[in-house]
Amino acid sequence: MEVREISQAVINRLPRYHRYLGDLIEAGVERISSNTLSERMNVTASQIRQDLNNFGGFGQQGYGYNVEYLHDEIGKILGLNTQHHIVIIGAGNLGQALANYTSFERSGFILKGVFDNNPQYEGMTIRGIPVMMISELESFLGKHRIDIVALAVPRSAVAELSKVLVSNGVKGIWNFAHTDLDLPPDVIVENVHLSDSLMRLSYNLTCLKGEKRST
Amino acid sequence: MEVREISQAVINRLPRYHRYLGDLIEAGVERISSNTLSERMNVTASQIRQDLNNFGGFGQQGYGYNVEYLHDEIGKILGLNTQHHIVIIGAGNLGQALANYTSFERSGFILKGVFDNNPQYEGMTIRGIPVMMISELESFLGKHRIDIVALAVPRSAVAELSKVLVSNGVKGIWNFAHTDLDLPPDVIVENVHLSDSLMRLSYNLTCLKGEKRST
Repeated sequence: MEVREISQAVINRLPRYHRYLGDLIEAGVERISSNTLSERMNVTASQIRQDLNNFGGFGQQGYGYNVEYLHDEIGKILGLNTQHHIVIIGAGNLGQALANYTSFERSGFILKGVFDNNPQYEGMTIRGIPVMMISELESFLGKHRIDIVALAVPRSAVAELSKVLVSNGVKGIWNFAHTDLDLPPDVIVENVHLSDSLMRLSYNLTCLKGEKRST
Repeated sequence: MEVREISQAVINRLPRYHRYLGDLIEAGVERISSNTLSERMNVTASQIRQDLNNFGGFGQQGYGYNVEYLHDEIGKILGLNTQHHIVIIGAGNLGQALANYTSFERSGFILKGVFDNNPQYEGMTIRGIPVMMISELESFLGKHRIDIVALAVPRSAVAELSKVLVSNGVKGIWNFAHTDLDLPPDVIVENVHLSDSLMRLSYNLTCLKGEKRST
């Protein structure tokens, strides 16, 4: 499949298409027009057509989209057709929550290990996977191919940890720490800044009360 | 302070400014030029000036920004000068993780209650706050002003819960469930779709491997 240069905005929308199409499959829907998909997703039909045209279209004029085919193709674009091996650092509540999302596993994100520096977690298992001590991390990374490391640790731990990860060839970091990472350009960082998200909600609530206006 | 119409892109950047300025305060920095802030934040200096000009500027030509003043003013824009009362629904790992972020409290987000439908959590306390049963939610909402409800529940629970929240006047929903909400326009929803985030990471990793290109 030939792929043109894709803007970040399109990439941001792809997981949502994938999610909606997954819901449609579960609901037994086999075909859907871009208009119906548009109503469900609250995106214009022309936006949907444009987005999907980036990847070659997938639809036949007048016939709509084959839901399962489109779901699979978008999955391939998102890299879900290959397995990603994941390690979670931080076995606290957030780390445990991430480790327990079995839906990630179904999308090909395979949890290979959980690490923490707190001995209270030593010997604990999550879904059968033992929590290891952080002192074992480097040797673990040396022995296993790990594609993505989720950082569910306090921000103070991040600088040192990310050095270890980068020097051991980890290319994907899912960062939940309340700080940005300063890493080489060939390392992909996806930030989940919960406090930024909460502040955005606060801003929009304040606008709603009429004290400010938002476009 | 007069405020013009603000684009969502600017709003998305404000919490990050606030975070960086908070770090500078902690580091004892009193003044900063837009150029230095720009280098730290990896945003152009003209972007910073443009963003802040939306709210009236804050900087004096040649003197840079007063860090604490700018931090406070952005805090006000984000609505952090008023307290927000929060309830978390879902006392599992994710709900507990959210309840334990004491940094939210310092920004004025005050946790008022945690609810779950699982009796195993009954009697548990998180930071001294008891977990209540979901059957008590409506009466609780009737008695207390709650500004924000965090939904840390499975998607199957979301439709019914959000009806209860809306009919009890909740205007802000912080949604961690793996689905979008269909609510009246005067209810603000901030979604944290972790699987969308993980898929974006997967896409960018796949691009990195040279199979695709991204702009």
